[in-house]
Order: sequence, then C-alpha cells, then structure tokens
Amino acid sequence: MTIKKSNKKIVVIGGGTGVFTVLTGLKPYFDNLTAIVTMADDGGSTGILREEFGILPPGDIRRALIALSATNDKMLAQLFSYRFERGLGLAGHSFGNLLITVLERITKNFEEAVNEAGKILSIKGRVIPVTLGNARLVAELENGQKIMGETNIDIPKHDGNLRIKNIFLRPAVQVNPNAKKAIMEADIVIIGPGDLYTSLIPNLLVGGMKEALKKTEAKKIYLVNVMTKFGETNNFKASDFVRIISDYLGKNVLDYAVINNKKPPLKNLSLYVKEGSDFVEPDLEGGRNKKMTIIKSDLLRSGKLIRHDPKKLGKLIKMII
Amino acid sequence: MTIKKSNKKIVVIGGGTGVFTVLTGLKPYFDNLTAIVTMADDGGSTGILREEFGILPPGDIRRALIALSATNDKMLAQLFSYRFERGLGLAGHSFGNLLITVLERITKNFEEAVNEAGKILSIKGRVIPVTLGNARLVAELENGQKIMGETNIDIPKHDGNLRIKNIFLRPAVQVNPNAKKAIMEADIVIIGPGDLYTSLIPNLLVGGMKEALKKTEAKKIYLVNVMTKFGETNNFKASDFVRIISDYLGKNVLDYAVINNKKPPLKNLSLYVKEGSDFVEPDLEGGRNKKMTIIKSDLLRSGKLIRHDPKKLGKLIKMII
Repeated sequence: MTIKKSNKKIVVIGGGTGVFTVLTGLKPYFDNLTAIVTMADDGGSTGILREEFGILPPGDIRRALIALSATNDKMLAQLFSYRFERGLGLAGHSFGNLLITVLERITKNFEEAVNEAGKILSIKGRVIPVTLGNARLVAELENGQKIMGETNIDIPKHDGNLRIKNIFLRPAVQVNPNAKKAIMEADIVIIGPGDLYTSLIPNLLVGGMKEALKKTEAKKIYLVNVMTKFGETNNFKASDFVRIISDYLGKNVLDYAVINNKKPPLKNLSLYVKEGSDFVEPDLEGGRNKKMTIIKSDLLRSGKLIRHDPKKLGKLIKMII
Repeated sequence: MTIKKSNKKIVVIGGGTGVFTVLTGLKPYFDNLTAIVTMADDGGSTGILREEFGILPPGDIRRALIALSATNDKMLAQLFSYRFERGLGLAGHSFGNLLITVLERITKNFEEAVNEAGKILSIKGRVIPVTLGNARLVAELENGQKIMGETNIDIPKHDGNLRIKNIFLRPAVQVNPNAKKAIMEADIVIIGPGDLYTSLIPNLLVGGMKEALKKTEAKKIYLVNVMTKFGETNNFKASDFVRIISDYLGKNVLDYAVINNKKPPLKNLSLYVKEGSDFVEPDLEGGRNKKMTIIKSDLLRSGKLIRHDPKKLGKLIKMII
C-alpha cells in the first residue's frame, strides 16, 4: 500500500543521531523535509577535519544527508557511512566527512558542498547548516568552570555531576539566511530529539534563530529525549527538558512537547544507569499546559538500545498534524 | 556535428596517464571501449593504500574510470581526481583512490569495487584490472642488481644509466578472466602509450596475457611513446620500443606500430633533456615491415608538455580501422 504523503513543509532542527531518527521516521509520510543542523561539533573525524582544513563540521550534515537519501544505490549510503578502521592517518575518519571536505575544497563554499553531496546521494529534501559562521561551543558549569568545545562538554572530562549553568557560542555567529527562510516558510518545526546542550541548544544560540522561531507561523514541536545524558542532563525529568529548552527558545514558543511514557525493561536500563544515564520520567500532565500541548505516548524502539522508534515518531507526528 | 561512432570493440592495455590519453582520444569515435590496466603500481597514495589495506592498486583504475566517465556532473570527475594537499595522514592521498578502497572494503571484492566506482561516475565502457592477483614488479639491471617494486623502478634511486635486462612479477599471477575475455572478443587491441617497463610490460607479464594476445583475432596496435624515460628507456629509438615490447609479447603479434614523427620545439625539449629524457627518434621506415605495418604521423600535442595529443591519436586510430 502506498501512503499518500503530506506536502506540508517540515523543518527538523537538531544534530547527531536524533536528526537521523526523526527524518527516517518522517520520510514515509512527508514529502517536503528540511533538516537544519548544528555546526558545533568538533570531535572525532569532524574535529580533525575542522582543525586541518578550517571547514565547518561535516558530521551532522552527513547523517542528515544519509537519512534523506532517496538513491536506489544502497552502496552510496554505505559509502557515506563508512568509517576507516585502519590506515595511518585514515583510521577513525568517516568517508562521508572526507567527501564533504573535498567538495568544500573544490567549490570553496560549504553550503554548495552540502548541496553537491546531496545531489550525489539523490536526497529528497534539503540539509542546511544552521550557520555558516565558525564558532565553538562553551559551557559554564555551576562552579564557574568553563568548558571549551562541544566534544569536551559531550564526553565530560570534568566532573560530570556538575550542572551546566550557561552555554554559548564563541564568537557569536549569525543564522544562515537559508535556514531562516526555511523556518519562516515552514508549516511545522520539530526540535529534537538529541543531546540538549550539545545538539539542540547550539542551534538556538545562533543569532537570529530564536527570533525566527518566535516569528514563524509554523507549529513548533519539541521531541523530548527518552534518556538523560551524563554530564548534561543528569536526573532530568521531562519537565526539566521542556523548561531548559524554553529558556533558550523563549516563553510560549513551543506548541507541543512530545514525551515518551513507556519505561524500558529494567535489564536494558541497567546498562545505561551504569554510565550515568537514566530514563526520563514523563512528569508533565498530558493535554493543554498554557499555550503548549503535552503529548505522551509509547515512542520506544524494541531492542537493547533505548531510543526513539522512528516509525512510532513518524506516525505520531503525522497524527498531530 | 555529431560523429557517427563505431561500435567496434576496442581494448586499451596500459597504465598511468597513457591510458587516460588514449581513452580520451578514442571516446568521440568509439562506443565500445574497455581498459585493461596494470596492477603493478605501488607508489604514492596507491602504495600506502596497498600496504595499509592489502588491496590491489587503485591509481591506474581511477585514471581510466575518469577517462570513461560520461556523467554530466563535472563535480564527480573533479572529486575523483582530487588530491589532498594537507591534513595529517590525508595529504598526498587521491580521493578517488580512497573511494575505490572503501568500495573494496564494503564489497570485499576489488573488481566489484571498480564496477561500483564506474557506476558512480556513469562510465561508458569498462575498466578491468589485468589480474586479481597481488604481485610486485621486479627489475633486473644489466649489472645483475635487482630492483623491487614498481616505484623504485619508475623513479630510480639506483644508477638510472644502467639498462633493465629483465623484468618480472613476483609472485607469478594469472590473468583476470574478464580481461582475457575482453581481449578474445575485441576487434582492436591498443597497447600504450606508457612507460615501457612500469606501465605496459607489467600487463604482458601476467600469466595468460601473452597467450590471449597471440590467440585473439583482434588487430594489435602499439602506440610508441614520444619521449624516452630516464632509468627505463634511455636513448631508445622507436625501433627499440618495438623490439622490447615484441620480446615480451612474442614475435609477429603486433599488426601496427604507430610512431610520432614530429620533433618538439627545442625550447620544450631542453627541459626534458635535463631530466634524462629525450625525443624518440622515428627510426623505423613507414609501411609494411614483415607482418607489421609502421605508421608515422604528427601525434604531438601543442604546449610545453611533450605528450601525445588525444585528438590526433583518436583520429589516426579511427583512420587505421
């Protein structure tokens, strides 16, 4: 059976695997998908390429491109996802990252490089860097300590029990005009799921993003994570996620918060708890909450990894809209 | 004006830039082109990938693929040709080589990887590794010294004034059945141009190649180089090239030898002479020479680099056939 696709304009904002999950879930239902992705990543293969070539980070772009790929050539998606496991100087690099880097070298333009990579993968939709400015993420902890760089915040070498008090980009950078345009023209804007401080908020810190999200007539949906993350969101409940994102987004901007209410099996959970991660309690009441509507549903994927199920996410969002 | 293309089956045997030149020249006239390329290269980016990944050498394959590419996307050809100029561990690598390496990792099959790379570039024609066996080239000099590895022969660290007495592959490897099949079915087989001992003869050393070239009913054309190469073909005249290739190919196998008879301008030549390279004197008489026909013609490209002009080559071959 072919699903009749909606031509509503959907913009997904985020980074990391979250964008991949939500785009994968939306693909069967929506025909007009745009991903706006964070440019804060500075670790691993991406970090090396940023440092050595002075380019914007390709990693999150790559994941979004693969999610939107409509090529019949499965080899191409495999090629983009391939990570070198050996080779002096090659080990650890993602081939897709190298591809985007080379396209940037040839075109001398990161956005054009992303578009060319999209052509190779025959993507259906668009992937837009949230900014074309080169900035680093800086977190200020509750004890006043400053942590420089997304990776150092993401994989804490500092005391991960300390809360993040404030997070900002240095230097300040402005929104990519194409990202702003996509938000202004969107019917729906989806934020998340994803690491709160290292994948989602870095998008909102870009100058002009908050304003665009306030101004647009699009419905704004926040997809709350299913698990907390050590060093970022220790002991956070759903209400904490919603409160913090609203701090950076502005009050009364979100129309929906979507919360998983299915607790994962204890035997799966225990592996996460060992690493300082825990289930996000769905502590908000369902239904209207001032301007915002809270939706609670089983969004869990089956299997050992505790993650959103792309199919359940896709269906739910289709239903909301 | 559209040229009506011949559907004669043409097989080009060689390596290096020579294959690129001749394929580029033939493309406007012939619809059915196959390149059989040497697997002896072990230098530069190719050498590193061979060593670190244990794959067959991708460099000559890459050049042939680019020559046969029929994609309208100019970016793709640029991408395949791109060479990293910086990046610790990346500098010197050809992106196309990395691409072929990754495809080999994914498919676990070098020939399939070459075909997949061909699909990405939308090549018109085929590129076939002469062997799927992994062997190194060994040269024995006139003083008995043995030089191991194609690069060490190609860029002599030994006394380049010493002649190569004998050259062989170690271990012995057998012809790729697809290469043999292409030769048996061909109407025309073209050998060269290219470095005699490091790009052409390594193909003929592969077990079964000599026999296939003797057996096939295809017309065999040898394109003699325009310049000698220091350490390989010092002071060689056209007759020396023909003699040596016949030593490895067998007597009375060649149907044509095509020789450039246009001497390059002295000011261009002097740069080459400094590096031990010189003009190949067209010392053979034109016309029939036992079984073989000698064709002499101006095949020189204009410009500082003394090379075959692909257009002149293409036209001449079209005329012969």
